[in-house]
Formats: sequence, structure tokens, C-alpha cells
Amino acid sequence: MIDVQNLEDVRGISLHHVGVRNVRYPIKVLDKAQGVQHTIGSFNMYVDLTDKFKGTHMSRFIEILNQYRNEIDVNNLDQILETMRVKLNSNVSVIEVSFPYFVQKKAPVSQAESLMEYTCKMWGSKSVEGKDFYVKVGVSVTTLCPCSKEISDRGAHNQRSNVSLVVRFSQFVWIEDLIHLVEDSASCELFPLLKRVDEKAVTERAYDHPRFAEDVVREVAVKLDEWSAIEWYAVECENEESIHAHNAYAFVKKSKLES
Amino acid sequence: MIDVQNLEDVRGISLHHVGVRNVRYPIKVLDKAQGVQHTIGSFNMYVDLTDKFKGTHMSRFIEILNQYRNEIDVNNLDQILETMRVKLNSNVSVIEVSFPYFVQKKAPVSQAESLMEYTCKMWGSKSVEGKDFYVKVGVSVTTLCPCSKEISDRGAHNQRSNVSLVVRFSQFVWIEDLIHLVEDSASCELFPLLKRVDEKAVTERAYDHPRFAEDVVREVAVKLDEWSAIEWYAVECENEESIHAHNAYAFVKKSKLES
Amino acid sequence: MIDVQNLEDVRGISLHHVGVRNVRYPIKVLDKAQGVQHTIGSFNMYVDLTDKFKGTHMSRFIEILNQYRNEIDVNNLDQILETMRVKLNSNVSVIEVSFPYFVQKKAPVSQAESLMEYTCKMWGSKSVEGKDFYVKVGVSVTTLCPCSKEISDRGAHNQRSNVSLVVRFSQFVWIEDLIHLVEDSASCELFPLLKRVDEKAVTERAYDHPRFAEDVVREVAVKLDEWSAIEWYAVECENEESIHAHNAYAFVKKSKLES
Amino acid sequence: MIDVQNLEDVRGISLHHVGVRNVRYPIKVLDKAQGVQHTIGSFNMYVDLTDKFKGTHMSRFIEILNQYRNEIDVNNLDQILETMRVKLNSNVSVIEVSFPYFVQKKAPVSQAESLMEYTCKMWGSKSVEGKDFYVKVGVSVTTLCPCSKEISDRGAHNQRSNVSLVVRFSQFVWIEDLIHLVEDSASCELFPLLKRVDEKAVTERAYDHPRFAEDVVREVAVKLDEWSAIEWYAVECENEESIHAHNAYAFVKKSKLES
Repeated sequence: MIDVQNLEDVRGISLHHVGVRNVRYPIKVLDKAQGVQHTIGSFNMYVDLTDKFKGTHMSRFIEILNQYRNEIDVNNLDQILETMRVKLNSNVSVIEVSFPYFVQKKAPVSQAESLMEYTCKMWGSKSVEGKDFYVKVGVSVTTLCPCSKEISDRGAHNQRSNVSLVVRFSQFVWIEDLIHLVEDSASCELFPLLKRVDEKAVTERAYDHPRFAEDVVREVAVKLDEWSAIEWYAVECENEESIHAHNAYAFVKKSKLES
Repeated sequence: MIDVQNLEDVRGISLHHVGVRNVRYPIKVLDKAQGVQHTIGSFNMYVDLTDKFKGTHMSRFIEILNQYRNEIDVNNLDQILETMRVKLNSNVSVIEVSFPYFVQKKAPVSQAESLMEYTCKMWGSKSVEGKDFYVKVGVSVTTLCPCSKEISDRGAHNQRSNVSLVVRFSQFVWIEDLIHLVEDSASCELFPLLKRVDEKAVTERAYDHPRFAEDVVREVAVKLDEWSAIEWYAVECENEESIHAHNAYAFVKKSKLES
Repeated sequence: MIDVQNLEDVRGISLHHVGVRNVRYPIKVLDKAQGVQHTIGSFNMYVDLTDKFKGTHMSRFIEILNQYRNEIDVNNLDQILETMRVKLNSNVSVIEVSFPYFVQKKAPVSQAESLMEYTCKMWGSKSVEGKDFYVKVGVSVTTLCPCSKEISDRGAHNQRSNVSLVVRFSQFVWIEDLIHLVEDSASCELFPLLKRVDEKAVTERAYDHPRFAEDVVREVAVKLDEWSAIEWYAVECENEESIHAHNAYAFVKKSKLES
Repeated sequence: MIDVQNLEDVRGISLHHVGVRNVRYPIKVLDKAQGVQHTIGSFNMYVDLTDKFKGTHMSRFIEILNQYRNEIDVNNLDQILETMRVKLNSNVSVIEVSFPYFVQKKAPVSQAESLMEYTCKMWGSKSVEGKDFYVKVGVSVTTLCPCSKEISDRGAHNQRSNVSLVVRFSQFVWIEDLIHLVEDSASCELFPLLKRVDEKAVTERAYDHPRFAEDVVREVAVKLDEWSAIEWYAVECENEESIHAHNAYAFVKKSKLES
């Protein structure tokens, strides 16, 4: 049976990425509190393609994913990337995996327990010239508007905000520690389960800690600048404004990537 | 060329709906302030299929849509539905069209003008036994939590909420009038453009009009019960809670459909 | 601390549904091959609200979900619904949970193994008048157009189609059995991992089994009509047409619900 | 009334982007065939924020958008960006606007007319150091798998594919010309309306022009390399594989940006 992908290509154009997108697979990831957590990954996997060949062999990506699915974490991304390079005969390999991640939280006064979802992503790339890894956490928080509080005789508009933090690190960092850093930078963190005593506490906490989107990303940046394990970061905060149908937004990244 | 769709089917199963979904088309709709508004419709169009035939003729739906695209409104839905029944040789025809709709708003104090988007839908069905029409408006508003206000020493959590109202009517009703009825039932309406004097006004207005999701749908229901043109309604309110990552929800419909 | 939700309401309007939406929680569900499967549920939970009270107690839904999260399946939905009715002092309780579900598949010729995702949903409702349960499976398949095959000198357009099947049953049915019934009704089933010998097999299988969206839902209906455990069903097929940017659609339901 | 945003910030962190996201507004854009086209834009608008100030003035973005909404096109993006820099007292201004765009098409044999939707985006940035503009078009096409055709005794799997092309140009280019270039690079272009004679034509055309995702992006790249108005490009093709639930993908960009 002819291998059409292996045919020679004469257009003289090498491709940066060829591969598979939106492959959904159950995975296990590291969990600071419980050792391991079952979740579901959405994978994009790519290699480069030299101008010599007509196509890549898409099935090999799925074979590699199936092989490693019980051990997807930042510690073995490097090995998966190397397997991709070898099995796909390529110079560069890239893997992106997004997954929901749950952390047990206690309500601030009642201590009632529940599980809160965060949206995480690992991104890795490897070539003969080196490798690169990033971790992203998506954290929803409360922001209360400093301007609204200051100018109004009573109340202040507040809303759910989505903070996205991407980091490059020199030593292993826990997803949980990145999440807590973000939550500490907002007007208040979110909880799935709040009894009435807790609702009073989070309402007053947010009112006492007004934050623009601009404040949130600056607070995160200040903390990350002091964390030696973090080589580079980019952080954005998008507020689902309760007084508008559109969102307010702020973004900052560490200006220089020390690599 | 053989007409495969017209072949006899022997499985003895009539189908309730066959047709096309997610057809995107530029349309013009009636606008209370400006006569007509250009927008973009997402169409689902169906007919029934007798157990005699293998398939329907999908291209005819697009021909009909193309023919009527400059005159899509509640006043001629009936004619479009009749054209569908005739051209598709069917007993029942159904059309659903969703579209963004913009209304000019003035900020409450500065009177600054801007355009606010609402998500609308028309739904019509016709058969030999009669016809049925519904209009749906999606309206985002502010809700401020009565419990949070009552139990907290300062502030109150509030958020963007999405209200969806479906009505069946005996006389023509303007989309704008449905929108205003919903906005009057919330803690405060939304505005794209608010200067500082306006932000103070909406913050205090929301604080002075706390509303659960339950309150919003009840307020809407009370007003609709008094509006003689409205034969039936269903209204839901979903709050993007600023203290949770999940939403609070309330739903009520008029119990009896007088048809 | 005052219980605002428990205050009397004077508007005289009972609400059909009050509760929480889009609560995300890790769950375990029954798995025919492996006993149990870890997955992630998206929950909507509602009760009705009498016209006597201003609001419901949203936190109790999360408490119940947290309590039962390790045993979410069709066999104990009834108990969860009863707990909701009791703890929320309501007449009616409703729970909807959607979750991804993975099944191991073997490629048709090479027998290469991989995991395929299906989108499932359980829906239950309980009141003093009785209870009702439905299960829904979402299954992506290949459809190859009978008309295109018949009229063309070579080839035939084909595409990914999404079939959605909802059933009400008198005896327990496995999700896996519903999935297989749908896959057998299409031009061909999908596989995450196909080697070249498999790709030849599925291409020819699809070409030899052309199916309109209309054919797929009729094939499913014929099989379900013969399955005594199935009391009622509704099935739809939506083709992501490879020759259009819109979708073709067919829908049929069992006409009478024998309850 | 105090201007909280104008307060001094002491954290010493300048922000790359502050502004508004997902602002929806009706706009008019240039249309090669008809002069002008009404559509609906989704806007992101940003400026940078010096470390001296606590926040930006979000309402000014909406004022600017409202002012220019009847003249949004590549020819006046520069003026809008300059207005943003001046009114927001910033060094850098950025605007992104995505919008659906409709082009009239004729079916290949019957010449039946209908409107086809494309998803377009303009992106502009301006600072004292210079300016930058990009245009993106999203084009759905048919791809038919060369491997499947070659190894199978009959038929070949094919599917809807989504091609995304971003270009930077030295002279004005029409959206329509970019669209046609992409459509000519696929197995076949899509049409909303196809009669039976047309369906035969597109089925056979696709079968006679098999294309991997890799082939599509290479074909686009070859044509763009010969077009002198195009300074830089990036093109990706994502196939909604009819034999898998995941997608196949290829990406290439012009290696050097001549600016």
C-alpha cells in the first residue's frame, strides 16, 4: 500500500506545524493535596514538516498520546516531546494540553467544603536547539470597582473576572500556588459553597479591597517579580463588568525573557 | 439525473423535522426608532417528511431564504412559512431566526449616546391545523443581591445577569417594548457608555433596587400578566454570580397557553 | 442574621424552576467495561418555589452535589432528587448533568486501540406525582451522501455528523449500547486511531453505506422500536456538510409517550 | 468628583494593554462588489498605561468607537488609532475588529445565486515608533484526502475545513481577492446553494483535486509568495476530519517580516 504522505513534495515549502487538534483524552495530572487527579485533556500536537515530504503521519500522534495518557505532567512533557520528534522524524515537536483542575476550598467562616474548578494548560516545545515549557492557569475572581466605590454614596459595582496567568519557570511550581497567588491579588476569591456567614464575609472583603483590572494584574506582577522560580510571566484580567455588556481588560508581561 | 430524495422509503417512519441549520444570512428587520435595521440572521428551517419519501430537497430552503432575505420580520413570517410548505410539499413548516439587535441608549445623567446589543429570535410554525409565532429577547442587566445587602455591613455583591423572555402575542409588539419591560424589572439596566456621573447613578440605583433572579422573573411576569397583547410568556434569569463561578437561575412561564 | 430568602413574597407568583446552573464537578459514573469511570459533570439543579417565599437557598444545591459526587448514576438519581426536595422544602426537583464519556475502540483492521469521546447527559425530575428519567448520548459519525454518490461519476461527499439520542427506559440500559446502536446506523463510525489499512476500510465502508441525515434517524428509530426497554426516544442527526458552510438536519421522536 | 483612575500608582509597573473587549457594534465596511456592506463588529481596543497612573478611562474607547462606527475600514484604522492615542494620553494604541462578511456566489453549473459568509478581522497598532496593520480572512472549504483516495478501491473521505489567512500588505488588498486565493487552493470551494447538477460538479471537482491540510497551506503560500502587495502572511488549515472526532492541522508563515 503506497505511503502518500511520504511522497516527495516539489513546492519547496517547509511547514512550521503539522499535526492534530482538539484531541480529547482522559488523563491523570499531579495534585499537590492528593498526589494525582483524574481529568480530561484537550490536546494539540504538532511537529514541523520538511519541504521534502508531502504530509505527516497523523495516526502517530494518537499512538503517542495513548501510550502516555496515564502520566501527563510537567515532569514528563520532555520525554513525550522527544518521542514525537523521533517517531515523526521531525526537528521540532510541540504539545499543548488544556484541562479542568479542581481544588478543595473551605468557605471563609463556616469552613464548609466544596470543589472549585480552574482551567489549566501546559505548553511544551522541543528541538535540537533546546526546549521551552509554559504553564497557564485560568482563575475566576471577584473584582470591585475602586472608582464606583469612591464616587457613590452607597454600594459599588463588582463582578466575576477571569484572570489568565502564563509562567515560564526554572524550578517546578505547583498549579495550586499559582492559583493562590492570583486569588490573593483580587478583591475576593470565589467559592462554590458559601453559607450566609460566608456571604457576609466575602461581600465585605470585596468592598474593603477594591481592584481595577489594572490593579489585579499589577498585584500579580509584583508577587511574581519576587518569586525566583518564575523566569517569565504574562498575566491578563478580563472583568465581566456588571454595569456594561462588554468587558474591561488589562494585560502585562515581564518585559525580558531570560533564556 | 435521478432524484434520490424522491425515492420511496419502505421503513414506514415519518420525520418531524428535516431541513437546514445554522444558515447565516444578512437580513433587515423592523426597527421602532429607525424603520429598518440591518443585521445578520442565523436560520434553522424545517419541514416534516412523510414516510413515503427517502429525503427532502435541502437546496430549496436556501432558495426561499435568498428570496425573502430583505423582508424578514414578524409580519411576513407567515408568508415565508407558506412558501416553504408549498415548495417542499410538506404539511408543517418551521422557521427559527436569531439575530443581534441594536438600540440607541442615553446614559442616565450625562445623556451620552451609544448602541446596546440585544439577542433576539423569531420562531414560527405553520400547518393545515394552524400557525404559531413566538418572539424571544435576550437582555443583559445588573442584579444586586438582596441577601448580601441585608446581612453585610457595607457593599453588596452584584453581577451581570442574562434575562431571556419568550412571548406569544395576539397583537404586534415591538422588540424595544419587551426590552424595556425587562430592564425595568432588574436592579439596573446596562449601558455601553457611562461617564463618571452616570457610573455613580447606576451604582446607587442598583444598591437601592436589590433583586434576586427570582425577583426579576416575578417582576417581568407581573407586568406581562397586565399586558393584554401577550397571550403567553416564559421568562428566565441567569445571574453570573460575582461570588461564585456558577450561575443562579430562576424560571417561570404562564401556566396556560390560550390558543 | 436575617434569612432574606425566607421572607414572604406578595406578588402571588410561584416559580417553576429556581436553582443553580453550570456547576462543574468531578464525578464517577458507571462504565460497562471497567466498572467505574472518572469524568467531569456540568450540573443544572432546580426546585420549584411556592409563591409564599422570596427566594430559594442556593447553597443547599452545592451541599447536596458535594455529598453525592462519588456516586452519580442513573441508579441513584432518584435518591438525589428526593434529597433535593426535602432539603429545599419543594414539590418538584430537577437535575441535569452533562459529561464526557470515553469508550475504548479497536481500529477495524489493525485492531489498534484508542479512546473515543462521547457527550452524555442524564436528566431526572421528581415530584409527589411521580418521577421521570432520560438519558442522552451524543455520537459523532460519518455520513456519505446517497445523492452525491448516485449522480457523480466518481467520489461522493461525506462529512462528520453529530447524532443526539434521548431515551426514556423501563429497564436499565448501558450508555455503550446506545452508542453502538447509533454508530451502526451511520455510513461509518469514527475512530481516534486509524492506520492505513483501517483508513482504506472506513473509506470503503462509508462509500458502500450512503446515508442521508434522514436515513440515520430512521435507522436509529427502527432499532429502538424493537428494543423493549426503550419507552420513548427522540433522535436528531446534524451533518456538518462538506459542500456547504451550513448543516443538514433530521429529527424524529416516538409519537406517544407511554407513561 | 474625584478621578480615581488618574491617581498616582506606586507599584512601578507599566501595563502593555488596558482597554475594552468584546464590544459589539454595527459597522459598515468596504465591499468590492457593492461599495459598502453593513455588518456587526466585535471590538477589542487597547492602549498602554504608564506606571504613573492607577487606571485608564474605559468610557473613552466607547466614545471613539461610537464616533467612527460608520467608517470602519483599513483606510481609516490609522486615524482611529491616532484618536485613541490622543484621547487616552498613551504611547501605543491597538484595535482588533472581527466581523462576518458576505459575498455573493454563483453555483458552478446552474449559476444559482446565494450569499456565503466569511469571518474577517482587521488588526492595527500605532505608536511613535510606527504602525502595523494586518487583515485576516476565515474561509471554509472542502478537502478530500489524497491518501484515502489512493489506497481505497472506491470513494475518498472528505470534509469541511477551516482555513485562516493573516496578511500584512504594502498596498490595499480586497478581502474578496484573499478569499478567492484560498478557495482556489482547496479541493473545492463551498456554496450555500447547490442544485443537483452543481452537487455532481463539486463532488467530482473535489475527487479530482485531493488535498491534505498540508497541501492547502502550501498552495496558499506559493500564490502569496508571488503577490507583490503581500509583505507577510501566516496561513493555517484545520480539517474537521470525517473519519475522526478530532481535526488535522497545518500551519506555515512567511519566515521573514520585511518591515
